Amino acid sequence: MDNGLPNLPCAPLTADSARSLVDSIDAFLFDCDGVIWKGDKLIEGVPETMEMLRKMGKKLVFVTNNSRKSRRQYSKKFRSLGLEVTEEEIFTSSFAAAMFLKLNNFPPEKKVYVVGEDGILEELKLAGFECFGGPEDGKKTIALEADFYFEHDKSVGAVIVGLDQYFNYYKMQYARTCISENPNCLFIATNRDPTGHMTSAQEWPGAGTMVAAVSCSVQKEPIVVGKPSGFLMDFLLKSFNLETSRMCMVGDRLDTDILFGQNTGCKTLLVLTGCTTLSELQDASNNIHPNVYTNSLYDLVGLLQK
Amino acid sequence: MDNGLPNLPCAPLTADSARSLVDSIDAFLFDCDGVIWKGDKLIEGVPETMEMLRKMGKKLVFVTNNSRKSRRQYSKKFRSLGLEVTEEEIFTSSFAAAMFLKLNNFPPEKKVYVVGEDGILEELKLAGFECFGGPEDGKKTIALEADFYFEHDKSVGAVIVGLDQYFNYYKMQYARTCISENPNCLFIATNRDPTGHMTSAQEWPGAGTMVAAVSCSVQKEPIVVGKPSGFLMDFLLKSFNLETSRMCMVGDRLDTDILFGQNTGCKTLLVLTGCTTLSELQDASNNIHPNVYTNSLYDLVGLLQK
Repeated sequence: MDNGLPNLPCAPLTADSARSLVDSIDAFLFDCDGVIWKGDKLIEGVPETMEMLRKMGKKLVFVTNNSRKSRRQYSKKFRSLGLEVTEEEIFTSSFAAAMFLKLNNFPPEKKVYVVGEDGILEELKLAGFECFGGPEDGKKTIALEADFYFEHDKSVGAVIVGLDQYFNYYKMQYARTCISENPNCLFIATNRDPTGHMTSAQEWPGAGTMVAAVSCSVQKEPIVVGKPSGFLMDFLLKSFNLETSRMCMVGDRLDTDILFGQNTGCKTLLVLTGCTTLSELQDASNNIHPNVYTNSLYDLVGLLQK
Repeated sequence: MDNGLPNLPCAPLTADSARSLVDSIDAFLFDCDGVIWKGDKLIEGVPETMEMLRKMGKKLVFVTNNSRKSRRQYSKKFRSLGLEVTEEEIFTSSFAAAMFLKLNNFPPEKKVYVVGEDGILEELKLAGFECFGGPEDGKKTIALEADFYFEHDKSVGAVIVGLDQYFNYYKMQYARTCISENPNCLFIATNRDPTGHMTSAQEWPGAGTMVAAVSCSVQKEPIVVGKPSGFLMDFLLKSFNLETSRMCMVGDRLDTDILFGQNTGCKTLLVLTGCTTLSELQDASNNIHPNVYTNSLYDLVGLLQK
């Protein structure tokens, strides 16, 4: 593939390749956790890099698999970190889940059960869907004794599973009974990230762990709406007048961000500020290679000034 | 394989094959959930069948993947249901986990972290190991905010994951950090059953769901000590003077009980009182076939009286 970038896989970003990259790109798609921030901590040089790219006339889009917040909540988070980002520039897997139901004409009389946090509930409500579960059900316990019968709502037509710090056995059984017993009940996963930088200090179990648990109990694979699935990109392209060949996906995860970029025909830039180390990238067992990689987003500023 | 039983896979038990079966068998291995009981409810005809087999001089062994109880607690449960079964006749996956550590010379100065219930903790303590986690950690919550740093005990040398109705994000992160960050930390699963009859009325997520979640977060497969792994059988054979060719595994799950029986060279009898239906057994996608099947254990009594 001739994209003006070095042919070698795993090439470090240089002054030359940085220049070719920005010249060939109209829109930069950024993952957030591990690229823009870690937990609630901004990564060094992000404001400067974003300012530079905006001044160059590049479109910036933020694509996150983290479903804990809605677009509105993410916009607020950006502002609290001193970055002006509008809701329309943000694509979250929580929003993607709501849009998936909308585009697939999910019947309005059906309900949605949520294993996840507020972001999913908020996006579903904004899209006009009736939903329940979420943090509220994190307080519920069950009595796994004798003749206890677990009731569930027969009008649930979709179960959405995302990252859930309030995950528990009650929700696992609720999700299982809906998916197994309600005819044609959809099983949707926001994403399958095994881990994520939920706090700045360390990694935590990601949405993939909740999805794995529910998937195991129903012996079914979910529909994935977040990265690396193409659903988010299709939706994004419908929203903006863009060509994927003139887009660059910037991320810290090989199996979601870089794979998503590759699956959808974007150029790809891996940054090492998140969960992938240089040795993991260069390990023989890794078969996902970005076009270029660099230590941190901020390198773009330095390299383009050379 | 000529074992005096019909060659056709999925043959229903008849008066003739029931007679050949008991004549060729010295020891019957019974799964419990779905064979002996459902939740806390005894399945019809079990006491009569057990009495008949004991009178015939057959050895009875109870092999359960359910790790919620210890052998002592199971013996108590049998008694409460009117069945006299000694601790020595019971092999649980909780006991198997403790025996696995013992046989592998797990260092006494190391600790064991438990994602599971009392049964595992009790068996570990009986075997002399220091352990923590379990139901106690089910009450713990975490603050997934800002700079929060999750501490874990660096002296944990093994994480055991079993069925856990108190499963939560705290335990998921505890297990993840121990397995990922403590050098050579063992990751042991009691079993991988996706579901189980935890109550008499319906199925619930099984230990396999907790194992799937932890396994996803560490991107590693566990060592499985329960069915269908051969570890339990090796240990059982060491305890009794038995030949597997003269043993029959009786169970309600194809992918654990029947597979365990086949993996270890036993004859196999599937009963339909648990989680497998006749149509699932006969479905073209199923490739695990017991030697014989019957509706319920009690059929043995009726067929042998013909």
